[in-house]
Amino acid sequence: MANILIQGATILTMEGPDQEIKDGEIAIQGNRIAAVGPRGSIAADYRADRVINGSGMVALPGLINCHTHAAMTLLRSFADDMPLMKWLSEKIWPVEDKLQPEDIYWGTMLCCLEMIKSGTTTFADMYFQMDQAAAAVEKSGLRACLSRGMIGNMPNAEQALKDCVILIKEWNGGADGRIKVMLGPHAPYTCPPDYLRRVVEVARVNQVGIHIHVAETMDEVNQIKANYNQTPVEYLHHAGVFEAPVLAAHCVYLDEADIEMLARYKVGVAHCPESNMKLASGIAPITHLLEAGVNVGLGTDGAASNNDLDMLAEMQSAALLQKVATGDPTAMPAFTALSLATAGGARVLGLERETGLLKAGMKADLILINLQRPHYYPLHNLIANLVYASQSADVDTVIVDGEVLMEGRRVLTMDEDRVIWETQQRATQLFGRS
Amino acid sequence: MANILIQGATILTMEGPDQEIKDGEIAIQGNRIAAVGPRGSIAADYRADRVINGSGMVALPGLINCHTHAAMTLLRSFADDMPLMKWLSEKIWPVEDKLQPEDIYWGTMLCCLEMIKSGTTTFADMYFQMDQAAAAVEKSGLRACLSRGMIGNMPNAEQALKDCVILIKEWNGGADGRIKVMLGPHAPYTCPPDYLRRVVEVARVNQVGIHIHVAETMDEVNQIKANYNQTPVEYLHHAGVFEAPVLAAHCVYLDEADIEMLARYKVGVAHCPESNMKLASGIAPITHLLEAGVNVGLGTDGAASNNDLDMLAEMQSAALLQKVATGDPTAMPAFTALSLATAGGARVLGLERETGLLKAGMKADLILINLQRPHYYPLHNLIANLVYASQSADVDTVIVDGEVLMEGRRVLTMDEDRVIWETQQRATQLFGRS
Repeated sequence: MANILIQGATILTMEGPDQEIKDGEIAIQGNRIAAVGPRGSIAADYRADRVINGSGMVALPGLINCHTHAAMTLLRSFADDMPLMKWLSEKIWPVEDKLQPEDIYWGTMLCCLEMIKSGTTTFADMYFQMDQAAAAVEKSGLRACLSRGMIGNMPNAEQALKDCVILIKEWNGGADGRIKVMLGPHAPYTCPPDYLRRVVEVARVNQVGIHIHVAETMDEVNQIKANYNQTPVEYLHHAGVFEAPVLAAHCVYLDEADIEMLARYKVGVAHCPESNMKLASGIAPITHLLEAGVNVGLGTDGAASNNDLDMLAEMQSAALLQKVATGDPTAMPAFTALSLATAGGARVLGLERETGLLKAGMKADLILINLQRPHYYPLHNLIANLVYASQSADVDTVIVDGEVLMEGRRVLTMDEDRVIWETQQRATQLFGRS
Repeated sequence: MANILIQGATILTMEGPDQEIKDGEIAIQGNRIAAVGPRGSIAADYRADRVINGSGMVALPGLINCHTHAAMTLLRSFADDMPLMKWLSEKIWPVEDKLQPEDIYWGTMLCCLEMIKSGTTTFADMYFQMDQAAAAVEKSGLRACLSRGMIGNMPNAEQALKDCVILIKEWNGGADGRIKVMLGPHAPYTCPPDYLRRVVEVARVNQVGIHIHVAETMDEVNQIKANYNQTPVEYLHHAGVFEAPVLAAHCVYLDEADIEMLARYKVGVAHCPESNMKLASGIAPITHLLEAGVNVGLGTDGAASNNDLDMLAEMQSAALLQKVATGDPTAMPAFTALSLATAGGARVLGLERETGLLKAGMKADLILINLQRPHYYPLHNLIANLVYASQSADVDTVIVDGEVLMEGRRVLTMDEDRVIWETQQRATQLFGRS
């Protein structure tokens, strides 16, 4: 692993809104950041094997996608503009039944390719046949939290839990420590309390976290209310789920007591604004969650309901949606949105000691964005420009764990044409016309 | 002007959701489309001076931005995350007072540059010193509807109307017919009824349309209600404004009678979802407007409140916002969103006989989007991918009035580096730090 010195970029460390270093330097040693500072500040005894010229670019922590279903990238644009249950039952589930292990591998590869090209360095995934997803993550060079989705009221629920234990043994800490395994009980309405208690026990024994969909739709809230006279958050609390570290995706419908509970148990919330809009699920009360001290990150959800995996766009949608939903143009200012996509996401995934900030000692997960584009000028406010005017094609360089995954928009860890070809071939065979 | 043949692209004519021609051909003769069809269908006696290889691309009508303030691109990221009136009175207006004619020229050039690079071929502008804007439009090669903004309750209101008549004489039909002049009374709350009647008279005599902000905020609605006991739409109707062709920007707050009136008078609505979200103005009832038969197009508004001029992103935001606002995921399906950005916009600007569709006889305003990107695969549904997963950097080629303005992302009508340099210099001098 080469020691890399990045020189000349404007650096956003994301430690605070004013932590902007013009003409800065970042020294990478092995897989960690050794130093960050203005040009000339790096220790004299630091030896770089290579130097990256960052002039005209901004360096920031890699983006963190807190909720997706990577292999579902295969289902992008397969079914759009449909009601959720019709979409799932008539389109998505029948196709998912046909997916083979190689489909999962290539679908996840396409997801990883798109994420690298849009500046994501870490993602949290929930799907099945996760050994295939893990192999794709290892190959791609990305960092990931992988969870096998488990439907507690299906015949294979027991087998799913056993698969999870195998996945933990084989992959937790795998890919040079880039892969972390979590348990993925699907949602309150698909996992009975007894099953959730068994999941919590497996989490405790194996010291892993839990990734679950929570309060995504009003239907879910009504169903849990009808069956248990509880909110989804109360339901999870009663089943003991918050004894484990929890990543809760969506959290669209919450009452005050729910929000207080999420804060108290340090539950991480993955806010997915574009998916919630596209499926008409609703608008999560993110401004309230942040005021209550809840850890919040951003996620794209799967490409079947977004339809891209672009965290720069997600960050913009998050900010705009909170403003219009609260009627307050000062809600979720640009720095907050960028924080959720970086340091906030790291906290949500329990990775805050590894990634999400550019400072000495952190893993070297960072991106360079090329500012030589008309939509970044005039450059009055760099952070506002990044949140409100950027696009993923502006991402020039992506480094994860000290390895360069993309440089000058060329992805180095996979053959882009082959990934597109493989996934298009498989999709055509699986779904007919495309 | 060269005759251009585009071969091999997938063509979306936008005449209907199924009008997709694979491996198509588009023949351009002078500034018009001579023919559109599958490969081999073009008349044998058509002679192309040059052939553009469109394979791996989709050809569609150029995007139409129905509401912007082009020169305000100079103010991009100058002030964000602020309440509207504070933003205007403390930040925007003081700076606008300092703008010199050359600033307007270069600000408009930067706007045109960004619009070309994001696939916009026609835009509707409202600002001041519009001879400068017209010169920039002429140079850029874009098509535009230009209106001088007029504040009816300001001392210069009379002069503003005289300026408009001069602008009409000098520029209406200018730049080889690419420029159309409209009158720009700013809004109901800044233009008294008597002034609006004078504007309508000038419009009638000169046979031009009117471009005005309408019902953008609840404050405006309350103010017009308090002063006139009318809605903003009723107020305009009483002042005779709908006797002229009208382009009404925003239309966030409308009642049923307003909507019926907009339909009856064929008022064109410029929906600006991202600006309405960013300023927390509200959500326009676009689904209702379309059901009522109102002509709707999309606009970015100025870069100071968006902060980009990206119509592909605007189209996505429009679709997602209608879904979440109505609670109906089938609201504004992808084809509708793409229609608003093309044919719908042309109708709103009264240009439906010139642009907005790819068919023989229309002006040759079209774009090629490069599909060789991971976020377009699998390609189950091209229109869904364009609306939900595209980004402006995917636009490869832009043709307006038969002239190639951009090819392989290189803009041919202006020096990109110079435009960025000029605007950054001017912004730095005008606003201090940047």
